[in-house]
Amino acid sequence: MDNYVRIFDTTLRDGEQSPGASMTSTEKLEIARTLSKLGVDIMEAGFPAASPDDLEAVRRIAIEVGNRPDGTRPPIICGLARASRLDIDKAWEAVRHAARPRIHTFLATSEIHMQYKLKMDREQVVERVVEMVGYARSLCEDIEFSPEDAGRSDPSFLYLVLGEAIKAGATTLNIPDTVGYTTPEEFGALIDGILKNTPGIDNCIVSVHCHDDLGLATANTLAGIRAGARQAEVTVNGIGERAGNTSLEEVVMALHTRRPIFGLTTGIDTTQIARASKLVSNYTGIVVPPNKAIVGANAFAHEAGIHQDGMLKHHTTYEIMRPESVGVTRTKLVLGKHSGRHALKTRLVELGYPLSEPELDKAFERFKLLADKKKTITDADLEALVADEFYQPREVFTLDGLQVTCGTMGMPTATVRLRGPDGQVHVHAAIGTGPVDATYKAIDAIVKAPNTLQEFAIHAITEGIDALGEVTVRIEGTDGMRQLDPQREVEHARTFSGHGAETDIIVASAKAYLAALNKMLIATGQYRPVEASARAEMT
Amino acid sequence: MDNYVRIFDTTLRDGEQSPGASMTSTEKLEIARTLSKLGVDIMEAGFPAASPDDLEAVRRIAIEVGNRPDGTRPPIICGLARASRLDIDKAWEAVRHAARPRIHTFLATSEIHMQYKLKMDREQVVERVVEMVGYARSLCEDIEFSPEDAGRSDPSFLYLVLGEAIKAGATTLNIPDTVGYTTPEEFGALIDGILKNTPGIDNCIVSVHCHDDLGLATANTLAGIRAGARQAEVTVNGIGERAGNTSLEEVVMALHTRRPIFGLTTGIDTTQIARASKLVSNYTGIVVPPNKAIVGANAFAHEAGIHQDGMLKHHTTYEIMRPESVGVTRTKLVLGKHSGRHALKTRLVELGYPLSEPELDKAFERFKLLADKKKTITDADLEALVADEFYQPREVFTLDGLQVTCGTMGMPTATVRLRGPDGQVHVHAAIGTGPVDATYKAIDAIVKAPNTLQEFAIHAITEGIDALGEVTVRIEGTDGMRQLDPQREVEHARTFSGHGAETDIIVASAKAYLAALNKMLIATGQYRPVEASARAEMT
Repeated sequence: MDNYVRIFDTTLRDGEQSPGASMTSTEKLEIARTLSKLGVDIMEAGFPAASPDDLEAVRRIAIEVGNRPDGTRPPIICGLARASRLDIDKAWEAVRHAARPRIHTFLATSEIHMQYKLKMDREQVVERVVEMVGYARSLCEDIEFSPEDAGRSDPSFLYLVLGEAIKAGATTLNIPDTVGYTTPEEFGALIDGILKNTPGIDNCIVSVHCHDDLGLATANTLAGIRAGARQAEVTVNGIGERAGNTSLEEVVMALHTRRPIFGLTTGIDTTQIARASKLVSNYTGIVVPPNKAIVGANAFAHEAGIHQDGMLKHHTTYEIMRPESVGVTRTKLVLGKHSGRHALKTRLVELGYPLSEPELDKAFERFKLLADKKKTITDADLEALVADEFYQPREVFTLDGLQVTCGTMGMPTATVRLRGPDGQVHVHAAIGTGPVDATYKAIDAIVKAPNTLQEFAIHAITEGIDALGEVTVRIEGTDGMRQLDPQREVEHARTFSGHGAETDIIVASAKAYLAALNKMLIATGQYRPVEASARAEMT
Repeated sequence: MDNYVRIFDTTLRDGEQSPGASMTSTEKLEIARTLSKLGVDIMEAGFPAASPDDLEAVRRIAIEVGNRPDGTRPPIICGLARASRLDIDKAWEAVRHAARPRIHTFLATSEIHMQYKLKMDREQVVERVVEMVGYARSLCEDIEFSPEDAGRSDPSFLYLVLGEAIKAGATTLNIPDTVGYTTPEEFGALIDGILKNTPGIDNCIVSVHCHDDLGLATANTLAGIRAGARQAEVTVNGIGERAGNTSLEEVVMALHTRRPIFGLTTGIDTTQIARASKLVSNYTGIVVPPNKAIVGANAFAHEAGIHQDGMLKHHTTYEIMRPESVGVTRTKLVLGKHSGRHALKTRLVELGYPLSEPELDKAFERFKLLADKKKTITDADLEALVADEFYQPREVFTLDGLQVTCGTMGMPTATVRLRGPDGQVHVHAAIGTGPVDATYKAIDAIVKAPNTLQEFAIHAITEGIDALGEVTVRIEGTDGMRQLDPQREVEHARTFSGHGAETDIIVASAKAYLAALNKMLIATGQYRPVEASARAEMT
């Protein structure tokens, strides 16, 4: 058995299934690029059968991230498919343009799932697995099969199903603890049993896929790896349905920090972890709490505000990892109002944002405006500014002006001026229960896209009373737009998130709401985005 | 060995050490009452040697929560002390009024801590432990001793130190993985070794105390319990320094959900978990992410928005716990503008808020105001309203009026009217970088209490565009107020959090900031709170 653990990232598939984590295909592509830079071995780019948009997003990733013009080895691009020809065809259509494509198909093997969900008996399940794995293999060399709810399946039936899947052509066998039910001992024993009892398993990679319902996902994943699994399925920040999937950063840093115990390596460039975490949090709108292992704001914060003394020089007294090893920079203060264009460019390149010259012009303009308001501009400010300016969804309606009055007199009023897709300017005033409600009501009166606000959050990006406020919103369309869930074969209402960053949080709230609305309008095909001309004007 | 796992909650001690989690003694008392209702066996109420305020907070908890007039058994109230007479004296002074007091003392035993932090050799460490455990035992029957950084200590030295501590009178031996470094296998083996090799251990309780730096705190705690530990040290929501402590809710629900495997019980009333989680999050200002196991907003959310079909009736296909088992109510819609005082009272009692008649009058008034603005009032709205109205710190300055203008024209202006501790009304207008900045600048001009804003966050409590916005702020006084860290023997800058809930988020922001400022002013002794008269006027 080799000592290399393959990191299979499913942020774009299982992660995106969390409520509100829906992303545009541009956002997905951006995350895929970041995952490639992070060094993941395989990325599950989506579930192509869900919708034509989902298929197209996976296809773009397969083409643009699954190939490298410089001749270095790109990551494997994987598409999920239920055990049906239609799903497998769509997955193949989406991933085939990658240099290294993979199809991942699954079927449940626990009694409870077979009885209530599939309404199939064991023989029928085996037959379907053999047929569909074989069909997938006829299209693609690299096939992954998962017996869904393996954590609650009869082990002897698992050995049989997996053995048949291998004969039919599966090359990776993934063992999911779908409902996050097992303990590390059980899960390790399950993997051990599979490795010992499944015919033909020696030539395959065994993979583990855990959920965190009891807070044990990382431990279960590590237990599976110690038992011999050599692929771990994870998401950045541990996002995913319910309590989420195993965190990429926790598994990777446990393996790296305790290398002498595990004796294993991964291909991850750990210094990219902090940036990937931030990007995924921004695009999905799912916050990372300060006490999150590895990527939380406090994870390395214990030296802040403490009187330095000799003891602290020996950082290992209370620190088992260096913040730099996961890409957390200690330097906070970087630029101020007297910093020039060159200083900004240099710092942005250091932060991993090599902007084009016209983009840099625009960024510098925003930077000067911010520097007029805010004494010191930190890395976090710069990242928020770049995200706000360049990583927004394509625009349909743009904010042209906003004026708000509110307070304890209880008549919050907002006047909004928007530029529509037709180039026309629309103005509307509205009263609400608060300044954000008034602003959103005024926007609604112009945009006329019925939706329910599901989530609204603001946080200050940096310390200080003059900080940039970053707003995240999540809306659900009320026109019946739904998204297919591959496992439960049911449809969720589709939700869209948007974010905006400004020192004025009401302006940021308006921008975030418009971003989410624009995503929704584009997804429903009601509007085409304002393309080239408007973008050119902006950059 | 018995089958009962004692739950030792250290939310008020190790949890409160997280940056920004400082609480007022009223908030601590409220949390202590909630922990008592939750059924924790022991609560570590604080570190009395840190400051006279900390001692007083622990003393109040010992008196008011550590005794039960109805004759039922109250929880053990524990105070932390470094291995020094002064600390032990203060801990005893604080906890002695409880019916069941405990002193918890500690000293580091790892080579790295002994060499760089303590500058003591092994013999000196043993000598100090024997002396101080013996001294503590001369005051109190129930003594807990922790060898700090046990996870990185030489096991054979641990056996020796623990054996001596037992001889000196320790009744509980707590084994901390101080830096969150161990894996479940290592930590289980450590506990197993201690149980097998420590002289006199049979008559003691072995306890485990883990940190989540590698995401393994829950798994390590469970591994320790399986190896024979019968006390688990935990915090609500897993708060604590860096990546935090083991989560109470994860350990308890793992033991309960997988009872056939563990064969163990706890005294926790799991239906109180959701409420405790919410209270701790409110008072500490530390957010719970949606994908947090057990208490995250999405932990049980997967049925929302899904087309119901036959399969979903068998909830166990994708659900290993019922939301009701941890006190999450599925009912969202409860009251509207036509609901009467009686309906409100009934619902508040069901939610665990048995308000007095004058309090209920006040709550009903707030409820009617909210119902005028908001179509449906949910449980979450009611809880926010009650917290905002009744669980605020005692007031020094109160908000009398606020008027704000902001928007894209870039001159956000706020006019603030405050009533001061002298009963005088003060008005000030200020311009800022945004509406919150302008408001805070106007407040600062009146209150004149220098501070740095460390954190600012807003979230909508419920779905819908007219939701209540809840604001959490954290400030750090710039006048040198510091808080002693018991382990590193260094001082942190003291920080204070405040929260406010209103449909107008700028008004909520003003209230949250004032709450934090009032906490700070009371803590520094600059002002006495506005007592009886003003409170009476309010209720």
